[in-house]
Amino acid sequence: MIIVTRRNLSQGRINEALSLLSREKLEARTVSWNDETLIVTHESPSPRITSNLEETGIVERFVVSSHKAQLGSREFQAEPSVVKVGKAEIGASRIVIIAGPCSVESRDQLLEVASVAKRAGASLLRGGAFKPRTSPYDFQGLGETGLRMLSEVGEETGLSVVTEVMEPGRVELVAKYADMLQIGARNAQNFSLLKAVGKSKLPVLLKRGMMTTIDEWLLAAEYILLEGNPNVALCERGIRTFEKATRNTLDLSAVAVLRKKTHLPVLVDPSHATGSRDLVAPMARAAVAAGADGLMIETHPNPENALSDANQQLNLEEFEGLMTELGPIAEAVGRTIR
Amino acid sequence: MIIVTRRNLSQGRINEALSLLSREKLEARTVSWNDETLIVTHESPSPRITSNLEETGIVERFVVSSHKAQLGSREFQAEPSVVKVGKAEIGASRIVIIAGPCSVESRDQLLEVASVAKRAGASLLRGGAFKPRTSPYDFQGLGETGLRMLSEVGEETGLSVVTEVMEPGRVELVAKYADMLQIGARNAQNFSLLKAVGKSKLPVLLKRGMMTTIDEWLLAAEYILLEGNPNVALCERGIRTFEKATRNTLDLSAVAVLRKKTHLPVLVDPSHATGSRDLVAPMARAAVAAGADGLMIETHPNPENALSDANQQLNLEEFEGLMTELGPIAEAVGRTIR
Amino acid sequence: MIIVTRRNLSQGRINEALSLLSREKLEARTVSWNDETLIVTHESPSPRITSNLEETGIVERFVVSSHKAQLGSREFQAEPSVVKVGKAEIGASRIVIIAGPCSVESRDQLLEVASVAKRAGASLLRGGAFKPRTSPYDFQGLGETGLRMLSEVGEETGLSVVTEVMEPGRVELVAKYADMLQIGARNAQNFSLLKAVGKSKLPVLLKRGMMTTIDEWLLAAEYILLEGNPNVALCERGIRTFEKATRNTLDLSAVAVLRKKTHLPVLVDPSHATGSRDLVAPMARAAVAAGADGLMIETHPNPENALSDANQQLNLEEFEGLMTELGPIAEAVGRTIR
Amino acid sequence: MIIVTRRNLSQGRINEALSLLSREKLEARTVSWNDETLIVTHESPSPRITSNLEETGIVERFVVSSHKAQLGSREFQAEPSVVKVGKAEIGASRIVIIAGPCSVESRDQLLEVASVAKRAGASLLRGGAFKPRTSPYDFQGLGETGLRMLSEVGEETGLSVVTEVMEPGRVELVAKYADMLQIGARNAQNFSLLKAVGKSKLPVLLKRGMMTTIDEWLLAAEYILLEGNPNVALCERGIRTFEKATRNTLDLSAVAVLRKKTHLPVLVDPSHATGSRDLVAPMARAAVAAGADGLMIETHPNPENALSDANQQLNLEEFEGLMTELGPIAEAVGRTIR
Repeated sequence: MIIVTRRNLSQGRINEALSLLSREKLEARTVSWNDETLIVTHESPSPRITSNLEETGIVERFVVSSHKAQLGSREFQAEPSVVKVGKAEIGASRIVIIAGPCSVESRDQLLEVASVAKRAGASLLRGGAFKPRTSPYDFQGLGETGLRMLSEVGEETGLSVVTEVMEPGRVELVAKYADMLQIGARNAQNFSLLKAVGKSKLPVLLKRGMMTTIDEWLLAAEYILLEGNPNVALCERGIRTFEKATRNTLDLSAVAVLRKKTHLPVLVDPSHATGSRDLVAPMARAAVAAGADGLMIETHPNPENALSDANQQLNLEEFEGLMTELGPIAEAVGRTIR
Repeated sequence: MIIVTRRNLSQGRINEALSLLSREKLEARTVSWNDETLIVTHESPSPRITSNLEETGIVERFVVSSHKAQLGSREFQAEPSVVKVGKAEIGASRIVIIAGPCSVESRDQLLEVASVAKRAGASLLRGGAFKPRTSPYDFQGLGETGLRMLSEVGEETGLSVVTEVMEPGRVELVAKYADMLQIGARNAQNFSLLKAVGKSKLPVLLKRGMMTTIDEWLLAAEYILLEGNPNVALCERGIRTFEKATRNTLDLSAVAVLRKKTHLPVLVDPSHATGSRDLVAPMARAAVAAGADGLMIETHPNPENALSDANQQLNLEEFEGLMTELGPIAEAVGRTIR
Repeated sequence: MIIVTRRNLSQGRINEALSLLSREKLEARTVSWNDETLIVTHESPSPRITSNLEETGIVERFVVSSHKAQLGSREFQAEPSVVKVGKAEIGASRIVIIAGPCSVESRDQLLEVASVAKRAGASLLRGGAFKPRTSPYDFQGLGETGLRMLSEVGEETGLSVVTEVMEPGRVELVAKYADMLQIGARNAQNFSLLKAVGKSKLPVLLKRGMMTTIDEWLLAAEYILLEGNPNVALCERGIRTFEKATRNTLDLSAVAVLRKKTHLPVLVDPSHATGSRDLVAPMARAAVAAGADGLMIETHPNPENALSDANQQLNLEEFEGLMTELGPIAEAVGRTIR
Repeated sequence: MIIVTRRNLSQGRINEALSLLSREKLEARTVSWNDETLIVTHESPSPRITSNLEETGIVERFVVSSHKAQLGSREFQAEPSVVKVGKAEIGASRIVIIAGPCSVESRDQLLEVASVAKRAGASLLRGGAFKPRTSPYDFQGLGETGLRMLSEVGEETGLSVVTEVMEPGRVELVAKYADMLQIGARNAQNFSLLKAVGKSKLPVLLKRGMMTTIDEWLLAAEYILLEGNPNVALCERGIRTFEKATRNTLDLSAVAVLRKKTHLPVLVDPSHATGSRDLVAPMARAAVAAGADGLMIETHPNPENALSDANQQLNLEEFEGLMTELGPIAEAVGRTIR
């Protein structure tokens, strides 16, 4: 249960409620949520306890959610969340486009992509500096050098920067350079990392794991929210199935399912999902039609020579073409691209 | 390899080529394909043999496909196929809508659905008369009575009729009443049935199996094509994965993959894929945006009381609303709904 | 609900009970089950109706199962079923070995395999005469010629014969030559075929579909049982997953799950499950240790030259070696191989 | 490629080879492997380069593996590895049993389990102190308090201790108390964590991820090996599939596949795989028959009241019964349990 407390209570008043819950052996914690203070209990208290709580006079309202992921639920917050990253608003009427290469390879590469992306209507620049690679023998990213390039090119082009962080001990470092932290699919249930980015309070792009159910994904998001960080955007990037014609199977139904279950915005990454340049445009169109709040599109000046994921990155011309195509679809569902 | 033969050859000339192949121990069969005669070999002949074949003077052209499903491949036929069912053209610029209840329950039910569907822009009427049910204790359909209702209501409303056939011995019966034969997901690799509907020469709607890869699906279609029946439309209806928030996982990437691999038209059934009324509309929109040639939408005058699949059928108002929504999306990808 | 009726009732007395159920709008059917007559209802009747039924004096006992697959449940029959095929008893203490080639290719091939298999302890001879092949261009089996070879070689060596039937219209033909009918994985939910082999009353080997859940599999078996054919053995042969190191993923837990849920015997086919000769022996050992009642092992005099599934068939020496290895494992779980 | 260098070379001689490789733009690193020094290259050098390397006189032998996971491959090390943890030898002829509760709950609980486990033949004590829980509202473990209990009870009973570590920053802490570090399924591709436990040089139990292919799993192990830590044991614990009768699908074929591909020992955890107490014993038997080097069995004095995974933990009597059952199976495959 979530207890939304009255505004401007002293810490003492909050502590009273916590003591009450503690005496009843109910685990609870306080969460700063935007400008409110919440008390979140792990189990739902009995009517007797809620009535006692009410008598303390600190309760604005109780929220009991049918979902285990309480803070992410529509019962807690009916209206959709808007996650602000620089000037971009993920979850607002304009569909947010995140573009950039799979890996940061050089400043020139990045600047070329970023300039085109910006002109075509993208709001965020992506690029991997720390790369989670299946094999230790594959390119692991440029590390802090890559972060610095991202930050500089972002500033130069006016794009905000989103990049992956792979371990709790690096959150601070990545946060120095990035406007939004990405949690990759392989870390979707790395709970230590989720807590760490929660504590950072920075906007977080939480990718779905390859075998994470929608409910598990929402509980992963809950780890972040529960640290008092409401700035979480979800990103569907394909799940693992028996089908091998695509790298993963893009689960667009998840976009519609999440719309009902959560107030958090949902993006789609058709590049990782399909693993194939030819399929990115139709799946990007479909994602917008399904109701996605944004797209992450891998873009590279010269995909054939990319150091990672060569097959799935659009060249700059293809990216510009896609952006043009998406306009009327966005309009058809009452949104805009630019 | 496919050998497209010259027009107006005598059977004797064809037989010569067959003898030649037989002497070389190459399995081959003749296929009537629209107004052409094809000789299709199971293995690719050596250059010596193709040169011998050429000398017989019967060869219009050879087609060697990189896909095992030769007749369905773009190498054999570059332009998309259009499958005609009554006045409907599946694969043409207008997106074809198939509507109707999961099961035929009564003449009244069917007529009510069909009238609304027709008015809203549907071209085909669906409805199960023979139902493949997981449990033998569930409603198995009205059988021939149901077929007769479909046929009568189809005629009355001017809709063509598509319905499922479950065994080779029933193809003739179902063909008496239906304009298009449906092969259901559980029979996607029922090869005896595929051959039987191939021989019927009627248009066939081939649903993807829950466990069928795209390549296996194309080979299932090949069983039908190889009987000289070019009237095959594919229908994606969700695959089985670990995710349980939806009944199946709708694989919209398959639409884009098939577009590249085959000339056969592709439809999408968001009702069976999602199993949930709320998800049908967003997935129908996404399917059109992804490039589907048509949609199969389960519709019922009173879904709550349906004898099967109550949760996934739209009521008539919802169906009309969806048809209105789809217009601008279709337009955005250069097509029409009505 | 299952109503086990008293012995030696007249048809008239049974009809009374059926009329009673029919008046209450409860679907029911009579099933001859070994030497008993059952009345099986689709829904569970209310206490009032069961009390009325009891008053008719025809009820020996009522069985209400917690599983939808009533006839297959342990509630209906607590002790394990033993399915007799010739001299073999599937489900008894001796583990039944089914051996033979993937496809019947020639009489010599078959006789060579059968002789070795018999000597090494196998009880049944397998071999495909009608082959369900993914591609129409692959070898489809020798048809009736193959059936005749199976029957002759079976008789010559004293092995019973099990072979696949692919369509209802062929059940009679296959039954002329085979002692046990096999339903293949792709037909696991071909309900018309299941009813047809049910009516045949012959022993049936029902393979699990590649994406069939255990509960769906039991309901598929129920289609057969409900025709009054209690001679059903289940065969686990691997399910489809994301893992590609094996052809399928052998689900040995299914053996233990089925042991609790059903009285039907369970076999395991490690050849199709793994698709790899090297893995057959360890998985055969594991299957016996897990409690399987039998094994189906593909064996070929010369696997390299097999017309289908060359990679997964054991040669005759490997088969004999495996049989020797299995002895002590069988003993360790209180069973025998020979 | 792996370059095994001659013994007792000076660092200068090694550096020469590294310089040579660096001039050729080949990424390489030195790895201390037991008492040898290896140079491991990311790509395979051309014959010219290997010939140049040979001329330096530092090469004992070259190993080119057909697997990307070079250090784990049988080509690099033909004989099976034996990972020593205290007195236990994982990979030797005696099958190693790891027993203990899902979570450490109290000293008494742990001591009771450990005493029985030790007496019944277990060598290692397991127990979660840091628990990766899907929901942030579930019991997260006792943390360092739990570690201390594990360590004390281990010492008291003479069992070595294995417990999970969830983040790189905690490796040092866990290593103070544990003899073996466990990487859980959700962290199977947490590459930062893999590197950290690699650097620790402690024995590592690497569980398979729910979504990890066998090849990806071996590459995850390679991350650890490449830090010069050869003490890696793999643990199959079930993969995620469509089947819901078991918590996961235990992939026992993986044991046999790994036996061929890698020299690393392989254990099986039937508790997490099946999620059901009744299935643990048959799957433990099957695992031993399939060739597993060890088992991890969740055991609890009072499973009904466990703080996590109540359904899958054996009580102490069941555990002792299982140990007795396993003896003859182990013997049948040429091994021992005690």
